[in-house]
Amino acid sequence: MKSVGVVQPQTRHFAAPLTLQSGAQLRDYTLTYETYGTLNAARSNAVLVCHALNASHHVAGTYEGQAKSEGWWDNLVGPGKPLDTDRFFVIGINNPGSCFGSTGPMHTNPDTGRLYGADFPVVTVEDWVNAQARLLTELGIEQLAAVVGGSLGGMQALSWTLQYPQRVRHCLAIATAPNLSAQNIAFNEVARRAIVTDPDFHGGHFYEHGVVPKRGLRVARMIGHITYLSDDVMEQKFGRDLKGDALAYSTQDAEFQVESYLRYQGDKFSEYFDANTYLLITRALDYFDPAKAFGGDLSAALARATAKFLVVSFTTDWRFSPARSREIVKALVDNQHSVSYAEIDAPHGHDAFLLDDPRYHGVVRAYLDRVADECAGPAAAPAVKGFAV
Amino acid sequence: MKSVGVVQPQTRHFAAPLTLQSGAQLRDYTLTYETYGTLNAARSNAVLVCHALNASHHVAGTYEGQAKSEGWWDNLVGPGKPLDTDRFFVIGINNPGSCFGSTGPMHTNPDTGRLYGADFPVVTVEDWVNAQARLLTELGIEQLAAVVGGSLGGMQALSWTLQYPQRVRHCLAIATAPNLSAQNIAFNEVARRAIVTDPDFHGGHFYEHGVVPKRGLRVARMIGHITYLSDDVMEQKFGRDLKGDALAYSTQDAEFQVESYLRYQGDKFSEYFDANTYLLITRALDYFDPAKAFGGDLSAALARATAKFLVVSFTTDWRFSPARSREIVKALVDNQHSVSYAEIDAPHGHDAFLLDDPRYHGVVRAYLDRVADECAGPAAAPAVKGFAV
Repeated sequence: MKSVGVVQPQTRHFAAPLTLQSGAQLRDYTLTYETYGTLNAARSNAVLVCHALNASHHVAGTYEGQAKSEGWWDNLVGPGKPLDTDRFFVIGINNPGSCFGSTGPMHTNPDTGRLYGADFPVVTVEDWVNAQARLLTELGIEQLAAVVGGSLGGMQALSWTLQYPQRVRHCLAIATAPNLSAQNIAFNEVARRAIVTDPDFHGGHFYEHGVVPKRGLRVARMIGHITYLSDDVMEQKFGRDLKGDALAYSTQDAEFQVESYLRYQGDKFSEYFDANTYLLITRALDYFDPAKAFGGDLSAALARATAKFLVVSFTTDWRFSPARSREIVKALVDNQHSVSYAEIDAPHGHDAFLLDDPRYHGVVRAYLDRVADECAGPAAAPAVKGFAV
Repeated sequence: MKSVGVVQPQTRHFAAPLTLQSGAQLRDYTLTYETYGTLNAARSNAVLVCHALNASHHVAGTYEGQAKSEGWWDNLVGPGKPLDTDRFFVIGINNPGSCFGSTGPMHTNPDTGRLYGADFPVVTVEDWVNAQARLLTELGIEQLAAVVGGSLGGMQALSWTLQYPQRVRHCLAIATAPNLSAQNIAFNEVARRAIVTDPDFHGGHFYEHGVVPKRGLRVARMIGHITYLSDDVMEQKFGRDLKGDALAYSTQDAEFQVESYLRYQGDKFSEYFDANTYLLITRALDYFDPAKAFGGDLSAALARATAKFLVVSFTTDWRFSPARSREIVKALVDNQHSVSYAEIDAPHGHDAFLLDDPRYHGVVRAYLDRVADECAGPAAAPAVKGFAV
C-alpha cells in the first residue's frame, strides 16, 4: 500500500484569543497541522482526523530523512487506503495543550513570560473543536465531508456534529464513548496522582528545575497501556512467560515478560511525553459529557446533530466497550439520524482502532467510498435537515 | 448475629528454620494467630482461614476496648454464622512477610541485626502453607476439617490440598484462580513500580531513613482498589458525580466523587501498610501456579488432591473471573474429585467475597453445615482415596 510520502507540518498563529469552556482565555497561540491530498475546487472533500491522547497532527506519511516516522494512522490514511488521500483532502491538527507542536504547557505564557507548566488553562473537547474550526476557516474549509476520530478523537468527532452541525456532513466515531465511566475516570485519576506526587513534578513547574517527573509518567503509561489491551491479547502475547529461564525470586527485578514490556513502554513514554499535557488530556477525557447539559439525556443532546454517522466498536475493548458505542447509536436512532454501526470482532482491545484489521478497515473504506462519491458528484450538499451551508 | 466477642492474638516462635521455595531460609521467626471456638476431643473440627493481601490472622471478633476492630471476615465467622464457631475451631494465621504481627520486613534480620526491609526473603503461597502446617502441628491439629480462603487466601486453600493432601478434608476456594493472568501480573507490576520508584523507598530500606514511600503505596492501593470493584458497582456508587456543585476546571484537585474516594483509600492504606510487604505479597500472587510443574496441565497438578471442594465465584469479578474458577472446577472434575461449584450473581466485583451476600453465605453455610455434621458424627475420617491420617 502506498504512503502519502514525505510530509511537512505547518503552523498557523492565532492572535485573537480563544475563550475556553472554563471561562479562561488562550491567547497568542499556534496550531500545528498537516494536510494530505488535494482540496477540490468545490472545497467539499476535506476530512478532519482528530487525535487521541498519545498522538498528534502527524496522521500519515513520514518526515524527511526519518524512515521510521510514520504517522499514527498511516495504515488507514493514504493513497488507495480506506481514508483515501487520492479522493480526500485530509487534515490532522495538533490540539492546544499537547506537547507535539501546538501551543501547550511547554510554551511561554504571554501573560508572565514564563513557561506555562501547570498554568496552562484546562482545555476541553469542545475547546479543541473550536480551535480546529477556527483553523479550518482560515484554510477556507467551511464544511467537512467528514470528521473522523478514535477514542478521545471520536469524542471530538462527535462534538463537531453538536457544536458545528452545519459544518460536518459525516461523522466517524470509532472506539469511543459518550462520556467516561467512573472506572475510566478512576484509571485517569491514578495516573494523574502518580505524576502529580512525583517529587520531580514540582507542582507542574518542573521545567524550571531542569527535571522531568519520569517516575510518574512511567506509572501513568503502564496503567494506560493495560487498559488499551484486552485481557485476552495480553494472555496471548505474554501469558506467564518468564524473562529468564527460571524464577529469580525477586520483588524488584522483572520476572515475567509482561513486566519487561510494560517497563519498556513506560520508559519510552517518559522520554517524550509532557507530564502537564498528560494531566490536561486525561482531564479533557473526564470532562467530556455532551448529555450533561440535557440532564443526562444523550438523545436530547444529539438532537441537534445533522451529520450522518458511522459508529464502530471492538468486541474486546473494555476501556470503551461496545455497550458505550451502542448508547451513541441508540441516541442517534432516537433522533432518526442516519447511522451505521459496526461491532468488530477483534481480539486487541481498545488498541484495535489503530490496527489494520481487515473487517474494520473494510467497513471504514466502504463508508468513506460513498462519502467520496458524494463529494465527486453534483450533490455535495450537506445531508442535513434543512440546514444550508 | 452474635460475634465471637473480644479476642486476643497469640504468637508462636519457631527456632527451626523454614526452608523456602527459593532455597533461602527463614529462621528465628514468629507467627501470630487467633483461634475462635473450641477444638473437640477428636481434634477433628479445626478450620483454617487463610488471608489475602490486605488482611491478617484477625479474622473475627474485636479487640478489647476497640469497638471498631472487627476481624476482616467477621460477617462469615462467628457463633451461628456460616463458619460457625459453635461447631468449628477456627484458626487465623498471619503469614510471614506480613506487616500485621508475624515476622516480616519490619522485623530484625537475625543474620545482620538490622531490620529486614527489602532483604526479607521472597515467600510463596507454598511457603505460607508450610508455615501454617507447622503451626497447626504445634497446636496438635493433624488434620483440618476444612481450609477456607478467598482470593490469595483461596490459592493457599488450594495449595493445602496439594502440599498436605492427608491433612485437609475440605477445601473452600472462593473468588480465586489457579494462577494470575498476564493482566493480573501487569496490575501488580504497576503497583510495585509505583512503590519501588518512590524516592522514599530507598531500595526497601526506608525504615532506616525514617520515611515511608507513601506516594507509591497510595498509587498501588488506588490501582488495586479499581480492580477489586466491578465497573458496574463503581458506576452505581459514584457514576460521574461531582465533588462540588460545578466543575472547578482543575487537573490536580479532585473533581469527581470517585477521585476523592480513591484518594481517601490510598491515603488510609499508606498510613498502615508496609511497602515491602506489598511487594512480597503481590509477588506471591504472581508466582502461584501449581500447574507449572505439570507443563501447565492443571488437571495433572490437582490429581494428588484428596479433599472435597467447594469453589465459589462472583459474576462481576473481573480480577479473578468465574472463568478462572471454572478452570479449577474442570480440573477437579477431570480427576473425579468431589466438587461443588457456585457462581454467585453479585454486583460487587472481586470484593464480593468479603461481603455478606445472602446467596453466597447461604452456599457456604450449607456446605460447612455438612462438614460440621461429619465432624460431630463417628465418621470424621478423611474423605480420601486410601490415605490414612
